[in-house]
Amino acid sequence: MSSQSFKYDEMVEEALRGVMRKSLDIACAEGLPGNHHFYITFKTGVPGVAVPEYLSERYPDEMTIVLQYQFWDLLVDDEHFEVALSFNDVREKLYIPFEAVTGFADPSVKFGLQFQVSDDLITRPIAPISEAEHEVDEADDSTGDNGDNRDSGEEEATGQVVSLDQFRKKK
Amino acid sequence: MSSQSFKYDEMVEEALRGVMRKSLDIACAEGLPGNHHFYITFKTGVPGVAVPEYLSERYPDEMTIVLQYQFWDLLVDDEHFEVALSFNDVREKLYIPFEAVTGFADPSVKFGLQFQVSDDLITRPIAPISEAEHEVDEADDSTGDNGDNRDSGEEEATGQVVSLDQFRKKK
Repeated sequence: MSSQSFKYDEMVEEALRGVMRKSLDIACAEGLPGNHHFYITFKTGVPGVAVPEYLSERYPDEMTIVLQYQFWDLLVDDEHFEVALSFNDVREKLYIPFEAVTGFADPSVKFGLQFQVSDDLITRPIAPISEAEHEVDEADDSTGDNGDNRDSGEEEATGQVVSLDQFRKKK
Repeated sequence: MSSQSFKYDEMVEEALRGVMRKSLDIACAEGLPGNHHFYITFKTGVPGVAVPEYLSERYPDEMTIVLQYQFWDLLVDDEHFEVALSFNDVREKLYIPFEAVTGFADPSVKFGLQFQVSDDLITRPIAPISEAEHEVDEADDSTGDNGDNRDSGEEEATGQVVSLDQFRKKK
């Protein structure tokens, strides 16, 4: 009996992506006060994602970035954000459409959101070099200043992600 | 260390009120197909709520309405919705600001949201006629066509409300 008109899960997801967007907007305008910091996990294969090639090769599926002390040139619009981060002391620009994001967390206040990214969105062939992929999985983690970037970095982020229910006060 | 800037609970709540608003927008444009129906619980004492006096006296705290087969003249804007419902065969207009809503559910698909309404918002003195209030609590439930209206009607509605987590697909 479910109607195509009432896709509540999609409506909720879109609404919560708006919360991520607003949080980045605030960070853009005011910086990140106190201990606030963002873990953002995104699918590197979604069209529109622009990261240096060596990063997308290293993280062919997902990549997690941390915005805390060392980030620059954060820009946010309705559809994407971009930011410069340091990797092995090289500052790199990342351009990330919101639709590529699978996780957003601010561990300082135990806030986290998870998002679905349709596999249909991912057009870049996964693992053109399958051996390289295996290497990635075993790569050590000391990959740069933004040291939480790893293909399985999401585990780290979601370790901080808590149920939305914790934010729904009891009546 | 929490900043005033990142009130995630408020941001999430506002975003989810947007889902309710959008659902009512869809119902406004397309009606309620299939088995879809809305349970909407609101605080009758919030300024801007306009319901017939005998209803606000009967439901001095909260009132739950059902939008399913018998509703008319649904109008939705950014701040409120209004709808005509039948009570004891009398059609009555209700005007409800979204900020007064504490619960929104579509039990047909087990979707539900709960919202906080600050007590500060409620300016109408609660129970000016305390005896009448006690009567309300014991009143029988066959109060009209919109038969789910009762001061404790929320129990009925929230019986259908499920955790948002059920709508957050597992990765």
